[in-house]
Amino acid sequence: MVKEDKAGVTYAKGFKAAGVKAGIKKSGNPDFALIVSDTDAAVAGTFTQNKVAAAPVYVSKKVVKSGSAKAIVANSGCANACTGQQGMDDAEKTAALAAAQLGITADDVIVASTGVIGVTLPMDKIATGIKTAAAALDENGSKDAANAIITTDTYIKSLTTDIIIDGKEVHIGAIAKGAGMIQPNMATMLCFITTDANIDQVRLQLALSAIIEKSFNMISVDGDMSTNDMVVVLANGQAGNRKIVKDDEDFKIFYNALAELCCKMAQKVAADGEGATKFLTINIHNAKNFADAKKVGMSIANSPLVKTAFFGQDPNWGRVLCAAGYSGADMVPEKTVVKFGNITVYADGTGAAFDKKALQKVMAEHDIVIDIDLNIGSTDATVWSCDLSYEYVKINGEYHT
Amino acid sequence: MVKEDKAGVTYAKGFKAAGVKAGIKKSGNPDFALIVSDTDAAVAGTFTQNKVAAAPVYVSKKVVKSGSAKAIVANSGCANACTGQQGMDDAEKTAALAAAQLGITADDVIVASTGVIGVTLPMDKIATGIKTAAAALDENGSKDAANAIITTDTYIKSLTTDIIIDGKEVHIGAIAKGAGMIQPNMATMLCFITTDANIDQVRLQLALSAIIEKSFNMISVDGDMSTNDMVVVLANGQAGNRKIVKDDEDFKIFYNALAELCCKMAQKVAADGEGATKFLTINIHNAKNFADAKKVGMSIANSPLVKTAFFGQDPNWGRVLCAAGYSGADMVPEKTVVKFGNITVYADGTGAAFDKKALQKVMAEHDIVIDIDLNIGSTDATVWSCDLSYEYVKINGEYHT
Repeated sequence: MVKEDKAGVTYAKGFKAAGVKAGIKKSGNPDFALIVSDTDAAVAGTFTQNKVAAAPVYVSKKVVKSGSAKAIVANSGCANACTGQQGMDDAEKTAALAAAQLGITADDVIVASTGVIGVTLPMDKIATGIKTAAAALDENGSKDAANAIITTDTYIKSLTTDIIIDGKEVHIGAIAKGAGMIQPNMATMLCFITTDANIDQVRLQLALSAIIEKSFNMISVDGDMSTNDMVVVLANGQAGNRKIVKDDEDFKIFYNALAELCCKMAQKVAADGEGATKFLTINIHNAKNFADAKKVGMSIANSPLVKTAFFGQDPNWGRVLCAAGYSGADMVPEKTVVKFGNITVYADGTGAAFDKKALQKVMAEHDIVIDIDLNIGSTDATVWSCDLSYEYVKINGEYHT
Repeated sequence: MVKEDKAGVTYAKGFKAAGVKAGIKKSGNPDFALIVSDTDAAVAGTFTQNKVAAAPVYVSKKVVKSGSAKAIVANSGCANACTGQQGMDDAEKTAALAAAQLGITADDVIVASTGVIGVTLPMDKIATGIKTAAAALDENGSKDAANAIITTDTYIKSLTTDIIIDGKEVHIGAIAKGAGMIQPNMATMLCFITTDANIDQVRLQLALSAIIEKSFNMISVDGDMSTNDMVVVLANGQAGNRKIVKDDEDFKIFYNALAELCCKMAQKVAADGEGATKFLTINIHNAKNFADAKKVGMSIANSPLVKTAFFGQDPNWGRVLCAAGYSGADMVPEKTVVKFGNITVYADGTGAAFDKKALQKVMAEHDIVIDIDLNIGSTDATVWSCDLSYEYVKINGEYHT
């Protein structure tokens, strides 16, 4: 069972973490995080598909390719994106500095950055951050690490879960940052997951890649896919279960737990979108296939007209249907049924007769479920999103440079 | 030369128009327009590609297929979309009522609606509107018609142009409404064009279809494709030029004039987007092909982060580059050059050194040109858009139902 738990990435055996102030953020808030496994860990990762990927994405992809890692360093306040060769050098230097400090090799260090694009890393502050964070590494350090990676998030995102595999207790924990520039495709933001499960790297990557498609890739705050997105899992095997190496019952137990954790985390990121006042769960039913179901869900999730309507608590189902109609997915208006909460608002090609007061009550909730039954196939999917408020415009219309 | 001109759809010979108050809009503003040609006119049209198309779209498509028309009736305040069989019956009845009033046949009447989705047409008011408008038909009635079709537009959109073909003066005029739910694909909003050119219907449709791709399909206010979009041209031949029937010099002259008119009108629609404080011209240079150039331009035009940055006069080129990177188009960050106004802000894979004060001056302008040189091909394209402001959220977050 996945639960909110500040233990986060230090919930699993053999992991320490720290979050410190390195002086990168102008606000003076914590901005540097370190997560370390006592022993070698299998590593899996998914990264942004943006052609304008940040330097740390390139560096970390190489580490994932190598198959194992022992540490994650992450800074907020500076994305190290669009920074050219200097950016690549800085990301590599960050890994090297952390490796030297921890007595490991640079190719065992995942590097992640989030913040403003186009600014180079302040390497003196990064160096200080690494030293301070290494000194602060603690088995209860996850909360500080979670706090150090957030930007415009309004709360830290930290989850844990546990399962029994081969009679052994296996722990999984995660921290994430989200908020703005959130639109899926592969990975969506920064999320670090640690587990003491004993699992083969290939299977770990298989699990993560499959799970991402129905969790982090199914959320959208604003349709913008970041240059820095990554989801990384470290699995150090300290739970002592027999190694998971194939698609057996052990793998299924691990997979389901990781999937549940990723779904919950994705939902938390969507719910805490910049300026969000509503958390929208958009269920697509009976689509022809998954791609179509996702298209309809994402089209609704990204429609500024739908998002502003929900912000205004306006049960404007016409905009929802309109967004479904231009999604590119197969749909037949006359067969489609739309519900807000448990109230049918559209069916048989036209607006349904509904209890206005009951519908107003649904629209006034913070969590709203939208059901779109396409009735032309048998595939379901769920997309999570939020509304578009004055606050989003304020946060992103502020002068940053 | 295209000019702003209230003569609009009555600029060409043999056209009359009217705009009246039929009581459809709660505000009591004009909401019913009628445009009539004295004689049979060749008709061409392009319509929304939204699978949830409004009833008037189906009715008008049939009229365009028939090849000729004599009248256009358009109401604002009610979209007659998602209204089922009742909506189809109402749209057909509207055409029949107008035909009876004008002494023509129903299949010569284009029907258009714009406004709230999911509400059926108040047919008694439509009937009254038809009578009142028919009585008010006038050679100077275009301004009233333009005023009757707008919704959240802040000004009427009316253009004219003229050319010489075969020694004869040929006139073209247009009115349009835009504002919200504006994202191209085929047609984008309501735009009615009249001309006294003598042109074969097939060539008229060919011209319009090609022109739409680089005018109305290249603008975006909010990425939402409406259920009701249409662009319709009536050509009644009263200029007396020899009939344009093939791809000759006469056709080219007409085509270029119509293209210039459509581009200017599309720009006006983008500039008057709901809540817009900025008009953005996004030039994509040296893309591999037109589809890629459009993808990059549209991705930038639709990015909420880019739009809010321009609203805040924040020269945040990182967001522009980020949007280009996730557009799906081929692009190489290191080869790409980004300019705001005439100032290079990004080149050689990193931020350029620029004069901050000069850039602030560019960002403070109402009209801002963004140039993205991809440097990997030889195809250019231009997309027009606007910013995302508090006012957009206000307009669309208001409770409409």
